[in-house]
Amino acid sequence: MACLREIEASQGKGQIVSSETLAALAGVKPTQLRKDLAYFGEFGRRGLGYDASELAFEIKRILKIDRIVPMILIGMGSLGTAFARFIITRANLEKDYPFRIQAIFDKDPHKTGTEFMGVRIYHIDDLKHMIQTLNPIIAVVAVPSQVSEPIIAFLCDHEVKAILNFAAPPTKIKPTKTIIHNVDLGAELEFLSYYT
Amino acid sequence: MACLREIEASQGKGQIVSSETLAALAGVKPTQLRKDLAYFGEFGRRGLGYDASELAFEIKRILKIDRIVPMILIGMGSLGTAFARFIITRANLEKDYPFRIQAIFDKDPHKTGTEFMGVRIYHIDDLKHMIQTLNPIIAVVAVPSQVSEPIIAFLCDHEVKAILNFAAPPTKIKPTKTIIHNVDLGAELEFLSYYT
Repeated sequence: MACLREIEASQGKGQIVSSETLAALAGVKPTQLRKDLAYFGEFGRRGLGYDASELAFEIKRILKIDRIVPMILIGMGSLGTAFARFIITRANLEKDYPFRIQAIFDKDPHKTGTEFMGVRIYHIDDLKHMIQTLNPIIAVVAVPSQVSEPIIAFLCDHEVKAILNFAAPPTKIKPTKTIIHNVDLGAELEFLSYYT
Repeated sequence: MACLREIEASQGKGQIVSSETLAALAGVKPTQLRKDLAYFGEFGRRGLGYDASELAFEIKRILKIDRIVPMILIGMGSLGTAFARFIITRANLEKDYPFRIQAIFDKDPHKTGTEFMGVRIYHIDDLKHMIQTLNPIIAVVAVPSQVSEPIIAFLCDHEVKAILNFAAPPTKIKPTKTIIHNVDLGAELEFLSYYT
């Protein structure tokens, strides 16, 4: 929903944006965009377009980002650090940014006990007794795949609602109550290769 | 194409895999999978399925990853480091892995002149005179957005075929001969939030 930012940037009471403009921003066809939005309800006015601020509000509601989403991050290697910096910077810059990292976990004694951009780094062993207090909706797993499986299993057992997993290859765990989204950095390259 | 790995793992002469199995691996409906593959040609046999090794070969051909794809990486911060480690590890482990980082560029004098997992880190100023010799198909940009625009413009001017851009917000540059793919780490969270 990169186009959501653009909608927000152009927000103003009563400002109308066409499905053609939005579709161009989102990189899809206008017919597809209208179909996708219609799936969630009636937002636009035929022949006129969408009210930008109304639509931004509705999309946030649909994506459930009209709330604070508490998160934890496990793994403070280069990828975890990059991810933490990205999220915390956004949260500092945008007052409505929904994602908040409550705590970071790692096993490196040089990192545990310190803070990263204001967020405390705990030892991974502390996760066991902290998970219920933290009660995170999303956990981000950025540890090597050799150690990720027991961590993912633990998070699923404690009914974390969603896991963003950067460990490759993707986890074999298929939980029933937790959704796991495996991010494959290499897939982006395969996508690009097709177009070269 | 995460399912491509699974196909490859199960490769064997004449081993047949059904569209149902493949669709489950890819997380789409079997009808969608058959439709998508049919778009590129006739691969399967109706009522039987697909020859696993044949299909893996064809998918690699379609994605143009049946070749070596020379790449450069610009920016060796935490995200660049994570990305380089991911790609170089894969290239070391899988003999057919197509993506090869030829050179890394950064401006930090503590990093330039050194190697990362066997790949030389050059000063960003060296990019100017090295680009034509390297002739990369893909450039990965992992620098802060405040400095990414002139780098992206330079890469487009030198007709790099594709750019994977991690700088946020996405670039405003709209080149005609280069495809730019903006990766938004935050978008993965918005996707997950919807399902919680």
